[in-house]
Amino acid sequence: MKKIKVGIVGHGNLGRGVEMAISHTSDMELAAVFTRRNPDSLTPLTKGVPVYSVHDILNFKDALDVLILCGGSATDLPVQGPELASHFNTVDSFDTHAKIPAYFDAVNEASQSAGKTAIISVGWDPGLFSIQRALFGAVLPTGKDYTFWGKGVSQGHSDAIRRIEGVKDAKQYTVPVPAAIEGARSGQNPDLSTREKHTRECYVVAEDGADLARIEQEIKTMPNYFADYDTTVNFITEEELKRDHAGIPHGGFVIRSGKSGFQNETNHVLEFSLKLESNPEFTSSVLVAYARAAVKLNQEKSVGAKTVLDVPISYLSEKDGATLRKELV
Amino acid sequence: MKKIKVGIVGHGNLGRGVEMAISHTSDMELAAVFTRRNPDSLTPLTKGVPVYSVHDILNFKDALDVLILCGGSATDLPVQGPELASHFNTVDSFDTHAKIPAYFDAVNEASQSAGKTAIISVGWDPGLFSIQRALFGAVLPTGKDYTFWGKGVSQGHSDAIRRIEGVKDAKQYTVPVPAAIEGARSGQNPDLSTREKHTRECYVVAEDGADLARIEQEIKTMPNYFADYDTTVNFITEEELKRDHAGIPHGGFVIRSGKSGFQNETNHVLEFSLKLESNPEFTSSVLVAYARAAVKLNQEKSVGAKTVLDVPISYLSEKDGATLRKELV
Repeated sequence: MKKIKVGIVGHGNLGRGVEMAISHTSDMELAAVFTRRNPDSLTPLTKGVPVYSVHDILNFKDALDVLILCGGSATDLPVQGPELASHFNTVDSFDTHAKIPAYFDAVNEASQSAGKTAIISVGWDPGLFSIQRALFGAVLPTGKDYTFWGKGVSQGHSDAIRRIEGVKDAKQYTVPVPAAIEGARSGQNPDLSTREKHTRECYVVAEDGADLARIEQEIKTMPNYFADYDTTVNFITEEELKRDHAGIPHGGFVIRSGKSGFQNETNHVLEFSLKLESNPEFTSSVLVAYARAAVKLNQEKSVGAKTVLDVPISYLSEKDGATLRKELV
Repeated sequence: MKKIKVGIVGHGNLGRGVEMAISHTSDMELAAVFTRRNPDSLTPLTKGVPVYSVHDILNFKDALDVLILCGGSATDLPVQGPELASHFNTVDSFDTHAKIPAYFDAVNEASQSAGKTAIISVGWDPGLFSIQRALFGAVLPTGKDYTFWGKGVSQGHSDAIRRIEGVKDAKQYTVPVPAAIEGARSGQNPDLSTREKHTRECYVVAEDGADLARIEQEIKTMPNYFADYDTTVNFITEEELKRDHAGIPHGGFVIRSGKSGFQNETNHVLEFSLKLESNPEFTSSVLVAYARAAVKLNQEKSVGAKTVLDVPISYLSEKDGATLRKELV
């Protein structure tokens, strides 16, 4: 069988993760990497894969089955997503939850008119967590959902600390509160405040002679990022940061406490959890499975924008329907 | 909007659970219950719902949008499934894993030629567990799956004990071994034997004067059911059985320990778990969500047999696509 030809757009952590994830498949191959930088400055991890300027990408319309967009949600995808969806089947990890409806509409218009298929907001949240929330709510409509994130590194919060004067480097972990998780699992449907659900742990390398008390105060009172949380700040050396905090682990929990019976007298707890050693490598693995689905959907003329909720799970697999029924149903 | 009209075929624990689950929806209504017994002998839990003989069911071809088949997998569904799928959209909980491919083919032939949609093997295993196994394997193709069941009541094992001479009544719990679950979560991909994964706890009411030692021996050495497990047998009174073991709880875990990276150097653990106070009420809740999906699929001319792997999650929900994207993605 002919392999699915994949193009990667953007070669940061996510793009490199996609290269790794493709190596775990037998039906897909990496055909090209596209970058905004000078193509000569970039060497893919996969031997022999050519690198091109993203400005030349339309030359590859007939050579690629699907593009995996590995740019960021803040500035890259809002432009690239609709643009590329009008020429290619695409998959992306757009993760600004509040803007997903508008982004969906923009990508949908582009892909519909081009007869292409675009699966947006793929990853784990949004992504696998969205699937679980929708599935849990559909099978137990009476109940309550809880989403917890962590323990894991939040890139946005780490960046926010790095912007403080006197901070040389920093890593921030989002940590779910064990008692809150137990409450969610209890079937009591507790109301949990932001502060009750997560704590924030910061590991900060300060510049020589910086005012540590001021830095700690600035972190703990930072609106939106830290003010609503119990935050601990640990000052460490650059060596310690490199040695102990180099990874990008993450994870989380979706828990639904739901009811059945005419009087809601029966309790059920559904739980999905992830423990990821590398957040970008896992997100990339999910992107690659949905890239396969985008190609299959397009072959069936199912065009336009989709989310993970619109894609049957069987489309994600290399295995055909009969094999899945035999081995996994 | 017009409500989806549901017919229930069979009125045991599952049929009653479907009645309860429909009461948690606002877009579905129970239109009729069909039974093999004398219809006058049966009163549905839902007020005003008529009961008919299953022999008259073809008179209701135009009155019902979907049938939920609540019979058993051993003898009811292999006959009823294909028969009814050639006249109605259907959903069932056929759960004899080894026979799913053949059952799928029989139902598919019937529903395809009738232009109907039939979703088979709906529930939690097969069902939600199948979704998780397929999803986990698709996003992390390199890795290993573990399915654990319990703690919960196994009807088949309880029945097997009841067939032993001198046994008046019995309840059997399947219990996952905590150390095995920890092993599955460890990322070490251990090979776990049947005995290492689950134990079996039996609560037995013996007839007056029965030989307890013989009963215990017969249970523990029963091939297929108990011989391969560490089994404990507790003799209790009829009152204790009624007081402490009246419920039908169940649950379980699907755990995938998967790898990413070019050298499989990065570990991830994905886990789905259920804690159910009532196995049949939960299974029924899942059946009702898939009944909604069967009707939607049929409206789109997507006919024939399906499993849960073929149905997008969005089809299970009362909410429309835009609402799901806004609230749950």
